[in-house]
Amino acid sequence: MQGYTIDKLEIGQKASFAKTVTETDIYLFAGITGDVNPAHINQEYAKGTMFKDRIAHGMFSAGLISAVIGVQLPGPGSIYMSQTLKFTAPVYFGDTITATVEVIEIIAEKNRVILKTTCTNQDGKSIIEGEATVMAPK
Amino acid sequence: MQGYTIDKLEIGQKASFAKTVTETDIYLFAGITGDVNPAHINQEYAKGTMFKDRIAHGMFSAGLISAVIGVQLPGPGSIYMSQTLKFTAPVYFGDTITATVEVIEIIAEKNRVILKTTCTNQDGKSIIEGEATVMAPK
Amino acid sequence: MQGYTIDKLEIGQKASFAKTVTETDIYLFAGITGDVNPAHINQEYAKGTMFKDRIAHGMFSAGLISAVIGVQLPGPGSIYMSQTLKFTAPVYFGDTITATVEVIEIIAEKNRVILKTTCTNQDGKSIIEGEATVMAPK
Amino acid sequence: MQGYTIDKLEIGQKASFAKTVTETDIYLFAGITGDVNPAHINQEYAKGTMFKDRIAHGMFSAGLISAVIGVQLPGPGSIYMSQTLKFTAPVYFGDTITATVEVIEIIAEKNRVILKTTCTNQDGKSIIEGEATVMAPK
Repeated sequence: MQGYTIDKLEIGQKASFAKTVTETDIYLFAGITGDVNPAHINQEYAKGTMFKDRIAHGMFSAGLISAVIGVQLPGPGSIYMSQTLKFTAPVYFGDTITATVEVIEIIAEKNRVILKTTCTNQDGKSIIEGEATVMAPK
Repeated sequence: MQGYTIDKLEIGQKASFAKTVTETDIYLFAGITGDVNPAHINQEYAKGTMFKDRIAHGMFSAGLISAVIGVQLPGPGSIYMSQTLKFTAPVYFGDTITATVEVIEIIAEKNRVILKTTCTNQDGKSIIEGEATVMAPK
Repeated sequence: MQGYTIDKLEIGQKASFAKTVTETDIYLFAGITGDVNPAHINQEYAKGTMFKDRIAHGMFSAGLISAVIGVQLPGPGSIYMSQTLKFTAPVYFGDTITATVEVIEIIAEKNRVILKTTCTNQDGKSIIEGEATVMAPK
Repeated sequence: MQGYTIDKLEIGQKASFAKTVTETDIYLFAGITGDVNPAHINQEYAKGTMFKDRIAHGMFSAGLISAVIGVQLPGPGSIYMSQTLKFTAPVYFGDTITATVEVIEIIAEKNRVILKTTCTNQDGKSIIEGEATVMAPK
């Protein structure tokens, strides 16, 4: 239960986690965060939006990025310092989202790593783009 | 079910949502995102970390920001374009987190609003700092 | 709230419990156990497997056997000592699984009962075969 | 998303997953399996049992074994053929359970691997002992 320490990380190293997003996931996410925006949990309302259907919370997909960082790269022991998120397309119930993390910069003297963080759907379409700064496990 | 349109928004306008974070919230968050980092779900491991106890996922608290934006300010009809998150302190089970959103810039011609987004705990300590860019409801 | 004591049990005695397995059941099971094997939660991946679709965790169906033992036969007060499980066919979301328990041996001097434990789907197809050893309620 | 194929497995290879078991986990497990045995969800009843407190379902801890097999060793693509489970001690809410899987036999010509599967608590006490037979990913 120890992730990659700073000396074990390399530029270009990647990891990913993928999941088919279900109504259950989004309803639980709405319940625990209190984000009961009708776009996520009201189908009648959603029909009248530009998305035409209920969509997942952007922050749910961001959670998949957190899963890759916390479980795989760098993994347990990492400290999440910051994250930028650009939400580039909606996620529908039933979409399969792949969160991918790639090492793009290593700041060894500060024990920090910069990761490119992206989410894409089953068609390869970009859903989230951004970067994370993480303190590597010691 | 219609949030503030761009002409109804004003610089300095604020809204917030607060919640006591429970073990249940964090275990469900771990379950739906797959973020089973032991820092969140393994008390024996957590004792040996610098935090000394299980902590919440940073992205869970970010979800509370999403709740304020999607439910209150600007509210339903908003489109979340981007978010920056700086995780400034850990959140423990039992902490009460207040997410606050404040209008800091209005770009009327693009129908966009920039929000200062912060989370603080019951002691007023900063947990998350950042900014959101949102397209206002039409 | 007291199950069958050893003297009330008879060879051939049976009980069963049936449930239609849903996506929600399997996603919650994945979340609480951490078993995020893509066979269970990633439809794109599952399409490429020999099962062609997401399947339930075998241990979820085993939980239905535990339900029959703990609730009905012998019922409350039983102590589950051991279980063998042979997974004989996949369970798909929407399948209705019947778990059945049958008394096949009574070891009165040790207060133990051996149960034949099976799960079948809506077509009568065997899903799980095995045996349980249970200490009867006192 | 591909686990260890048979030629990549070695005798003695190990993997594990650990989790602090919460009331939430057990209540959700009870809900999805229907195993509402009062030993798990009725504190007043539980006080009068030999365990003196509510305990986790044995099959919940077995689910942690399934998590190690399905996610790590052999990992995605494995087909779970059989499992034996000997429940050796109770699991209380708040216990931290480590499920460990170890390769003990490789039957290359049948693409099968035999795993020793154990669960222990935070004191190193054995909770489950058994073996799994798994078809390795192809």
